[in-house]
Amino acid sequence: MTNKNPRFINSLLKKPVDATPIWIMRQAGRYLPEYRASRQKAGNFLTLCKTPELACEVTLQPLQRFDLDAAILFSDILTIPDAMGQDLYFKEGEGPGFNKVIRSKKDVDQLLSPDPESELKYVMDAVRLIHHELDNKVPLIGFAGSPWTLSTYMIEGGATKTFQQTKSMMFNEPDVLHLLLEKLSQSVVQYLIAQIEAGVEAVMIFDTWGGILNPQDYREFSLKYMSLIVDKIKKTATCKQVPIILFTKGGGHWVKDIVGSGCDAIGVDWTVNLSDIKKQVGDKVALQGNLDPCVLYASPEVIQQKAGEILEQFGHGSGHVFNLGHGVHPDMNPEHIAALVDAVHELSRKYHL
Amino acid sequence: MTNKNPRFINSLLKKPVDATPIWIMRQAGRYLPEYRASRQKAGNFLTLCKTPELACEVTLQPLQRFDLDAAILFSDILTIPDAMGQDLYFKEGEGPGFNKVIRSKKDVDQLLSPDPESELKYVMDAVRLIHHELDNKVPLIGFAGSPWTLSTYMIEGGATKTFQQTKSMMFNEPDVLHLLLEKLSQSVVQYLIAQIEAGVEAVMIFDTWGGILNPQDYREFSLKYMSLIVDKIKKTATCKQVPIILFTKGGGHWVKDIVGSGCDAIGVDWTVNLSDIKKQVGDKVALQGNLDPCVLYASPEVIQQKAGEILEQFGHGSGHVFNLGHGVHPDMNPEHIAALVDAVHELSRKYHL
Repeated sequence: MTNKNPRFINSLLKKPVDATPIWIMRQAGRYLPEYRASRQKAGNFLTLCKTPELACEVTLQPLQRFDLDAAILFSDILTIPDAMGQDLYFKEGEGPGFNKVIRSKKDVDQLLSPDPESELKYVMDAVRLIHHELDNKVPLIGFAGSPWTLSTYMIEGGATKTFQQTKSMMFNEPDVLHLLLEKLSQSVVQYLIAQIEAGVEAVMIFDTWGGILNPQDYREFSLKYMSLIVDKIKKTATCKQVPIILFTKGGGHWVKDIVGSGCDAIGVDWTVNLSDIKKQVGDKVALQGNLDPCVLYASPEVIQQKAGEILEQFGHGSGHVFNLGHGVHPDMNPEHIAALVDAVHELSRKYHL
Repeated sequence: MTNKNPRFINSLLKKPVDATPIWIMRQAGRYLPEYRASRQKAGNFLTLCKTPELACEVTLQPLQRFDLDAAILFSDILTIPDAMGQDLYFKEGEGPGFNKVIRSKKDVDQLLSPDPESELKYVMDAVRLIHHELDNKVPLIGFAGSPWTLSTYMIEGGATKTFQQTKSMMFNEPDVLHLLLEKLSQSVVQYLIAQIEAGVEAVMIFDTWGGILNPQDYREFSLKYMSLIVDKIKKTATCKQVPIILFTKGGGHWVKDIVGSGCDAIGVDWTVNLSDIKKQVGDKVALQGNLDPCVLYASPEVIQQKAGEILEQFGHGSGHVFNLGHGVHPDMNPEHIAALVDAVHELSRKYHL
């Protein structure tokens, strides 16, 4: 059962490694022609997520091209609100939407508490299938959205720029929002535990929209619930060894608070200097990040140089998982990803001697 | 010539005031029905900017409703690239666009060096007219975009989410980008000096997109050029007394660097705690901000409470100009702005005893 590539898990646990591991947010995605073919075969994005064989297929695609140190389950953070009864859809070119939105206590009360092995069985089946196919070549990462981030989509009814409805609820009816966040936290806990029991070897919580809060609201409406989730997972016998990564986009300056959640690693975007962040967290957690994704628009030579700068900022020792500060863009060149992956492995060896 | 309302300028200069001054980013804007009427009269946004009488009319509208402590020239940051020869247009509901975009050294070389009193005379005429109409009731703020922020629009050809073209140039051809930023800096300096000579009493540089850079790139591609602009304005005899505010959205954690520019005040968005930021900058500069604009979606009672929290974070003494952390949204209720303005004046008096 031991994984043949221990770099990723060992780095998350701050154990020695031979080179810095790398995986890439949205590594299975539209920038790959084979992904676009799978998606076309599926007909639409949601079918791709809901068909375990196709989710497995696209999860493995980037590993066939690049020497990545981890796979990440192909899915979407909105599977949870969908299973809670909001009826998710994706319109081509428009992003996600829900047929039911959350605007009141009554709406929150009506949300279901999904059983991951029934309403979200398609996800667990995908995990089992991917885990089998990976054959312990590299570890598999499971994930969920943070309660705060999920709530923004559930309340707005899709993506938003102004967060009008969510923040109206936060400021005018904080109790209703807290009720929703508690309910979501329970669903996320069960969902992540089920993913772990189905075979994922690390989990990541994506708090894509935590960074649009002020520091006080971040602690009250986002971090509090992520901490609760970490706590419950760590208290579950089958899960307590599994590393947990928290990633709040735009939250790099709040790492001292995030450390208090009990997570094993913190993801940071490119707007912070990794050396500063390492000083702030000390030996308490590993760090994941943080190359500006747009560096992938540059030439392979520049990519190597910029990757080297990030490695140098983290410096010697374990506890660094290389990643972009955000996902790959659809118009990026796969060959540039290859250049990055190879550069990280090559240039990082000297920091692990 | 002395202004009847000295709160805003005195706060920028950290001199004593009776209450904390407040003005609001995009205070002249779509949330006001009278603004929408003026815009309809103009036919389109660009005509509104380019017709001094209409620009004056909309600049004064919020002052007729609210007890604001400053007026801000109604204009757009893209007047400069337009005057440099890029041929700006606004399509209804689509935002700005340029008929010519900047992609190469040749494109940069072909940019014109506009004379503010000819190619941008409509702005200076608006300043003179507004200054006359204001009759020193409150000070008038002039503004420009930061060279970095302007460059993103000029290179992308409009608004962007990924900054693909700009960052490609930054990583692949930094020298070309630096050439563009230098040329822009010269135009911004001349533009702001001309505004000051036409009657504005403070200037603000909007660095809307500085926060999407990593800390090192921010210093090299954005802050460096803003510092150069501050330096040149401060060395101009007619301008050296005029306070300068720098605002990098998402740059609140870089205030220690921003202080080094020699500016008088730093604007910060709502993702930082004003008390922390005040500790970092000490007595060196004033601070402007930083209420989450979405608080305006809440009830007047909540608005009062949240305004009180920001005032308390800044605490006693001068050097605070109250503002939102970003502009008013078009769907906000003007009555909520009135509640905020009154709350700030009322609740701040105790910090100035």
